[in-house]
Amino acid sequence: MEHSYFMRMAIELAAKNVDNGGGPFGAVIVRNGTVVATGVNRVTASNDPTAHAEVSAIRAACLALGTFSLQGCVLYTSCEPCPMCLAAIYWARIDAVYYGADKDDAANAGFDDSFIYKEFVLPRNERSKPLGELLPDEAQIPFEKWKNKSDKQTY
Amino acid sequence: MEHSYFMRMAIELAAKNVDNGGGPFGAVIVRNGTVVATGVNRVTASNDPTAHAEVSAIRAACLALGTFSLQGCVLYTSCEPCPMCLAAIYWARIDAVYYGADKDDAANAGFDDSFIYKEFVLPRNERSKPLGELLPDEAQIPFEKWKNKSDKQTY
Repeated sequence: MEHSYFMRMAIELAAKNVDNGGGPFGAVIVRNGTVVATGVNRVTASNDPTAHAEVSAIRAACLALGTFSLQGCVLYTSCEPCPMCLAAIYWARIDAVYYGADKDDAANAGFDDSFIYKEFVLPRNERSKPLGELLPDEAQIPFEKWKNKSDKQTY
Repeated sequence: MEHSYFMRMAIELAAKNVDNGGGPFGAVIVRNGTVVATGVNRVTASNDPTAHAEVSAIRAACLALGTFSLQGCVLYTSCEPCPMCLAAIYWARIDAVYYGADKDDAANAGFDDSFIYKEFVLPRNERSKPLGELLPDEAQIPFEKWKNKSDKQTY
């Protein structure tokens, strides 16, 4: 019942967001049974292609909790996360994810992310987007600085 | 030569960011030979797990240009994009990407994203992070609203 409660909240946020000029996606982040933050899709409304519901909720939750780790949190999203959001969920160390609609439902509504999943498993030189290596030796310098830094905050 | 110029800028941003308490990553977005925006990794500094250099640069470039599409732009990044950033690059419709260090260099410096790539190709129920379906029928409601909306901005 509790899980359904938070999922309904995510679905309602998604539906309301359509009325508010956003995309049909909503997300809720919960810790210990309490809502920490919510997010909706504001890609076109905010001119931010990364402002998917899940990424927006993650950023808001981290701001609210003053941390870059959401360990101990669960994310409820009205639709299965796209690859960007799924990776963000891993980076944020969220414990578990519940989704409502799935990626096929999203594709049917005009939000198809299957092309991105397909690109990921291809070797770099077979992807549709050109991806070229440049100055690989000079690019080690930041990493060397990082390795030699004594007071760094690892994560 | 021009490509190397922008890549050096990304590498220098990455190196300086280590001095400024950030991670060793920098990115530059260029349109018609002009820098539109830059970004650095501020995950721990800003308590934002999505604040990788590329995502930060994309958000800043969209803000600067007042658009959610970066068609016509090229991204230079000091290190090969992680899955979150690569997906964001696709969503932002950036034309092409140049990277300096690669993901193996990143892993050697303590930034290993291979576990995320591995998760993506697994069926949902075999992934390390629990991912469960909930209320799939109710979750169609936002999509139905979207499909029936006449003045929506698709993307």
